[in-house]
Amino acid sequence: MREGTDPTALSIYLPVVNELGQVEEHLHRIAKEGVGDLAGMLEYVVGTGGKRVRPAITLLASRFYAKDYTLPVIMATAVELLHVATLIHDDTVDNSSLRRGKATVGSLWGRNAAVLLGDYVFATSATFVCDTENVRAIRRFSETIMDLSSGELLEYCNTYNWQQREEDYCDRIYRKTASLFSTAAETGALLSGAPEPAVQALKDYGRHIGMAFQIVDDILDVLGSTDEIGKPVGHDLLQGVLTLPTIRLIERYPDDNPVRALFQEGNTNGYLDAALEMIRNSGIVEECYGVVRDYCIKASQDLETLEDGPARKPLADLASYVMERTR
Amino acid sequence: MREGTDPTALSIYLPVVNELGQVEEHLHRIAKEGVGDLAGMLEYVVGTGGKRVRPAITLLASRFYAKDYTLPVIMATAVELLHVATLIHDDTVDNSSLRRGKATVGSLWGRNAAVLLGDYVFATSATFVCDTENVRAIRRFSETIMDLSSGELLEYCNTYNWQQREEDYCDRIYRKTASLFSTAAETGALLSGAPEPAVQALKDYGRHIGMAFQIVDDILDVLGSTDEIGKPVGHDLLQGVLTLPTIRLIERYPDDNPVRALFQEGNTNGYLDAALEMIRNSGIVEECYGVVRDYCIKASQDLETLEDGPARKPLADLASYVMERTR
Repeated sequence: MREGTDPTALSIYLPVVNELGQVEEHLHRIAKEGVGDLAGMLEYVVGTGGKRVRPAITLLASRFYAKDYTLPVIMATAVELLHVATLIHDDTVDNSSLRRGKATVGSLWGRNAAVLLGDYVFATSATFVCDTENVRAIRRFSETIMDLSSGELLEYCNTYNWQQREEDYCDRIYRKTASLFSTAAETGALLSGAPEPAVQALKDYGRHIGMAFQIVDDILDVLGSTDEIGKPVGHDLLQGVLTLPTIRLIERYPDDNPVRALFQEGNTNGYLDAALEMIRNSGIVEECYGVVRDYCIKASQDLETLEDGPARKPLADLASYVMERTR
Repeated sequence: MREGTDPTALSIYLPVVNELGQVEEHLHRIAKEGVGDLAGMLEYVVGTGGKRVRPAITLLASRFYAKDYTLPVIMATAVELLHVATLIHDDTVDNSSLRRGKATVGSLWGRNAAVLLGDYVFATSATFVCDTENVRAIRRFSETIMDLSSGELLEYCNTYNWQQREEDYCDRIYRKTASLFSTAAETGALLSGAPEPAVQALKDYGRHIGMAFQIVDDILDVLGSTDEIGKPVGHDLLQGVLTLPTIRLIERYPDDNPVRALFQEGNTNGYLDAALEMIRNSGIVEECYGVVRDYCIKASQDLETLEDGPARKPLADLASYVMERTR
């Protein structure tokens, strides 16, 4: 998932700003504890200044019932570490040289170091989560690593496969993006001692917001300027990855669209521009906005079952913000 | 770690042969449950017919006190999955095309698929271990993944660095090999309800046997024929990796050995053969045998503190077997 616009000004961080500070402390302490060359590499990867959206969700989800934030802060730290590990391996697989404007691990220390450093950060996150001593939270966390890696693997195995269904896409983006949002919210609630219906509502909220986030990314990929999204427009298509807008294009024009030719012949004859043009002129983008909106509405509805409190509005704001990103 | 000679005929498997069968069933069931293309890839990697030495150690370590083998079998399965995951990433980093005579994941499905499949198997092992519901065992397991990846990373960061000390080497091989042996034994004991002194004795046993195993590998690398060890002689040196025999060579002849030249100029002027020849003719190999023997003796002594039972002799036999490998 890319986070285009800077949401740091958003209200979502305000109710948990102290706890997010503790997460930062944990992250930098963990980095410092790395042996030998690891310390510097870890400091680099935890210091790239991500938006910390996922740990904020964990902390906000815990805010409804928590009396003490020790366990939610541990979980939020593990969630961010897991996200960092994923980015290291994603960049390695994509052979990307930049991430948020900074050199990737692979481009600084080589692809092999990136594979092994990613492994180490995955393992560190899984070890850190054990400090919660909550087997259910620990298990959800490990299952989420399975989701993330299987999502990436399914995407990779299906590159240049133009015969994918929308349900395959939804399964894939659940695994690679929404699962971690869902677990971030679920475990935050769980570790705050929330009653089971609240845990489930926040788990659903996380899943819905995560799906919306990823689809927005995929819309921006066909729509946005390079400035906005940090990579060239049409990057996914060029990499052979089908997303919601392109799957809908293929469904709508099964015999007359340039995607198949693009996948088979590469980007010759202006296939990419033709595909992007067709998507933009077909109303498909508006349809995809509609799908995002539906997920965001569901996320807001998930919150309605919860008691009011200082975290409900920020979480609702996050849903609105995701919708805003599509405008 | 390479396992040269086939130890399947050894007594170590006999007392736990039924439980090892259950481990195999778990491994194949887990493979079958993989979504989409994953199932076939998983079946391939769990079916490569490793020696299952590590899960055997877990099961034997549990054999002193266990009344029920459910939890040790789960742990043994997780231990083997973790070993499989490590091999997938090791082969990817080394760019190896063969493992135990079969094509590696990277050579069959590409390096990127190997990175992601390795991640998935790591995560599967960490999830599976949660079925023990024992937080201490789960934590040890995750810490071991940290050890494995940091060991590999330290090795990678120090390639072609000819100024390494023996203690750096020992730390590195503890992480990359002995830690998993140690955890295999410790958690087997722990999950059988063994008293703490027995858990510690078996943990030490695992560490000592693991150190010995790795040093034997490293001796075979300078000594053995390609047939015996499955890779060209001097493979580590050619990859820029210092091991016990080469570190001792450099210590003994700091100003007059070909390793520095080999690392700086590559294998020109017969540097590799000259280095191997010096090691073989210097008595260093015998010294290294002595280090292995000391670890194996320590491993045997660890067992002496345990009550006698059907697992003690097989574990002692394993120590003898490791020593035999050096002859």
